[in-house]
Amino acid sequence: MRILRDTTPSRDGYHMPGEFEPHEGCLMIFPERADSWQYGAYAARRAFVRVAEAIARSEKVTVCAGAAQYDNARSMLPPHIRVVEMESDDAWARDYCPTFVRNGKGDVRGVDWGFNAWGGLHDGLYFPWDRDNRMARKLCDLLERDVYDKRDFILEGGSIHVDGEGTCLTTEACLLSRGRNPDLTREQIEECLREYLGISTVIWLPCGIYNDETNEHVDNICAFTAPGEVVLSWTEDREDVQYAMSAACLEVLERAVDAKGRRLKVHRLPLPGPVTITREECQGLDLNGDEPTRTPGERLAASYVNFYISNGHIVMPGFHDPADEQAREILQGLFPDREVVQIYARDILIGGGNIHCITQQIPGEPPGAAAGGKPDGGATTESDG
Amino acid sequence: MRILRDTTPSRDGYHMPGEFEPHEGCLMIFPERADSWQYGAYAARRAFVRVAEAIARSEKVTVCAGAAQYDNARSMLPPHIRVVEMESDDAWARDYCPTFVRNGKGDVRGVDWGFNAWGGLHDGLYFPWDRDNRMARKLCDLLERDVYDKRDFILEGGSIHVDGEGTCLTTEACLLSRGRNPDLTREQIEECLREYLGISTVIWLPCGIYNDETNEHVDNICAFTAPGEVVLSWTEDREDVQYAMSAACLEVLERAVDAKGRRLKVHRLPLPGPVTITREECQGLDLNGDEPTRTPGERLAASYVNFYISNGHIVMPGFHDPADEQAREILQGLFPDREVVQIYARDILIGGGNIHCITQQIPGEPPGAAAGGKPDGGATTESDG
Repeated sequence: MRILRDTTPSRDGYHMPGEFEPHEGCLMIFPERADSWQYGAYAARRAFVRVAEAIARSEKVTVCAGAAQYDNARSMLPPHIRVVEMESDDAWARDYCPTFVRNGKGDVRGVDWGFNAWGGLHDGLYFPWDRDNRMARKLCDLLERDVYDKRDFILEGGSIHVDGEGTCLTTEACLLSRGRNPDLTREQIEECLREYLGISTVIWLPCGIYNDETNEHVDNICAFTAPGEVVLSWTEDREDVQYAMSAACLEVLERAVDAKGRRLKVHRLPLPGPVTITREECQGLDLNGDEPTRTPGERLAASYVNFYISNGHIVMPGFHDPADEQAREILQGLFPDREVVQIYARDILIGGGNIHCITQQIPGEPPGAAAGGKPDGGATTESDG
Repeated sequence: MRILRDTTPSRDGYHMPGEFEPHEGCLMIFPERADSWQYGAYAARRAFVRVAEAIARSEKVTVCAGAAQYDNARSMLPPHIRVVEMESDDAWARDYCPTFVRNGKGDVRGVDWGFNAWGGLHDGLYFPWDRDNRMARKLCDLLERDVYDKRDFILEGGSIHVDGEGTCLTTEACLLSRGRNPDLTREQIEECLREYLGISTVIWLPCGIYNDETNEHVDNICAFTAPGEVVLSWTEDREDVQYAMSAACLEVLERAVDAKGRRLKVHRLPLPGPVTITREECQGLDLNGDEPTRTPGERLAASYVNFYISNGHIVMPGFHDPADEQAREILQGLFPDREVVQIYARDILIGGGNIHCITQQIPGEPPGAAAGGKPDGGATTESDG
């Protein structure tokens, strides 16, 4: 693995492909952190396994497990999913596994951003975070990919979405936060995204999902479903604090012009009713330092937008909410060539994110070459009842 | 990775190829154990790096490093050598990385033998050894190879050598030792070797190198250089306790008939003069439990036979001994298509083994397909002076 410091993906002809483009595979991390995952992470691990299995139906999945959980991970996951030993501070593959970029020949490289637990000493969520921060480079070594060193710029994978055609979506709430890159201007941050994602246009949404402790990552409120098309988390309830937030994003999206000069088609994806954490769930969480990570009744940042696009499936969260079915049907309509798999995800959500947050795709052959997956349509629901 | 329990390599048409056949690559482990490697393993690590670099000239090298040494390993090793995080109890890749077997189509699988630190509670060298014992399966998962589960049989890779044509060399001192498989007869042990190495003939040498704490592994006294040809560690000094040991082996080898019905051609490889550990070196070793691992003046099991055959090189130890040059010339004559690289190996030897012990090859394409390496002949010497 070469560590590339004197050049950038853009300069070398690399860009980050859209998630809906073909994948070589997917990276995940096995959860164990006792102040993130209630009651020793047993329920979380079962949910992660279901997600991994759903993704592994149409692409290779590699799950990283710390030494203490390696044997358990190996036992819980089916044989066709690879388990590799790698320590981490928590299990958010999207945010600190590499962002991968690809050139026209299909060569893939990683980008190793700096990671500081969503805000560092300003408003980060845990300390220390050094094991998370080392994962991107370790994974590039494991996968035999050269890696761009951009550790001097703090960025989590969940704070960006790209269309693979030059456009990036992000949120001001996160990327301009004081805990990330306080010494950089908005223009300098845009320049960095252009250079390292190989894009030309950044669309800045003002905010994300209410009480999203990542400083409102874009991947919980808005995602590309195709070039020129996005889904936006939406509520019709004007009393809900989320209403104004989603409306502000909609306004930006309706005015936006993407890198190809297109207006965006915006599909509204309903939100589930407010999901709050119970007292019993909070009692199953270790303290983080001296503080609880959650308080009973706290609203969790539940959203159907936090889905993963695999080669053959849409792997999306469900919350045993009346809106589950409607959200599933909308996504199935937007991805007619992929089968939607809905997984009950409360036990992931309690940790602070959802299915998109715990996955990171590795791009495969560029479009035009043979794609993986089985485009057989039809939706199924999985739930642990 | 599938774990295969109801079948054997032999039954599935797999066998262990000779080390001189083409490799896909080589596995090593980064040393850190303070009761094995003097003065915090700094000198040992430098020697391991030199070995890895020499092998990486003609095949892929993957080095496993525990979490604590990962960053250091990554810094010390050049970028073209892959480093993966994997914990172990010590650094003997030969003895507990998988033994690989191959079928006629070139498919490769691993064998996961039981490992008990060279004798378990009877006369093993450290306790516990569970992290070593888990490595073979972890590596098969990492390398995406199916693995035969043979953990109910204790065997270290250094206790066998094969010619790839049906013959296995081993020692009675090791394989019939009380600390390995005391409930199995010699015939049952042979049967196990036949089934899991895909061989038909076992040649039992009586013993190995004097004071070899592995119970005298064969890979320190005798190795195949080609089908039908071996090198044997030899001394002309009849006063040396090793004389009778090597002579007893020679007698067996001269009588032996291999799986193809051939008599073996035996090449005598001189031993260096006795290498003993100094008081200062012993003072740099942590205690193992309450006991020292070495005592000043103790003779170390130095032998030139403990070399590694890579695709393009013979990577052999040197001891700054007058016999270094003669041994090197003999091996160069026996491997005219490979370049001999001699590496000063006292700092590996102090740990209890040598270059063959710290490496494990992964077979590549079967003979007949294109082989790697660069057969440019000529010998070079590397030394840290």
